[in-house]
Amino acid sequence: MAEISTEAQLATFINVFPTKPRDQQRLVDLIVKAHEELIRHRPGYVSGNVHRSTDGYQVVDYTQWARREDFEAMVRDPAVAPHFAPIGELTQGRQCAYDVVYSHAGEGGTTHE
Amino acid sequence: MAEISTEAQLATFINVFPTKPRDQQRLVDLIVKAHEELIRHRPGYVSGNVHRSTDGYQVVDYTQWARREDFEAMVRDPAVAPHFAPIGELTQGRQCAYDVVYSHAGEGGTTHE
Repeated sequence: MAEISTEAQLATFINVFPTKPRDQQRLVDLIVKAHEELIRHRPGYVSGNVHRSTDGYQVVDYTQWARREDFEAMVRDPAVAPHFAPIGELTQGRQCAYDVVYSHAGEGGTTHE
Repeated sequence: MAEISTEAQLATFINVFPTKPRDQQRLVDLIVKAHEELIRHRPGYVSGNVHRSTDGYQVVDYTQWARREDFEAMVRDPAVAPHFAPIGELTQGRQCAYDVVYSHAGEGGTTHE
């Protein structure tokens, strides 16, 4: 479980991977494998969250790091390339660094007026 | 504060808005205004989270709903169109519905090896 908050001052990276319904599950499996075997063990890792679009055409990876530099150090490390290569053969994600500027939660969310 | 979890069984909508550095803050302000005045008051709302890319070229809106139908009911409601019109004049977002298929959090995230 991860928390989104404006107060945590984390570095958030969101990577949107376009895909096709026939490739989506394979892409999800590769990204989850990268999280399990590599990403979660890196210094500064806070959370990793993988989302599968219900239409089959997108996978979104939402990761949080203590500092932006932690993520950048991982990407620069030559040892990580083999973990990302199979993903790159399937799709090119579009990744950006983000700040959370607004976060609000309702009261449980299951209340219907 | 919002929580990302595979167990919550929420409907997650992620909307990626392309923008330009000179328009980004105005776009953020309009989206936050829509959350404050409209979205958070709708039935089934769980959370709303707005992200500003550090490069100035993206805004990502990450919302959670109890059920997918709650979001769809909001979009269909003619009363909401005026709230979204100013955003549509600035940019066309790309929105999808998602299921969270993986979520893992480290131990605080600030530990550096």
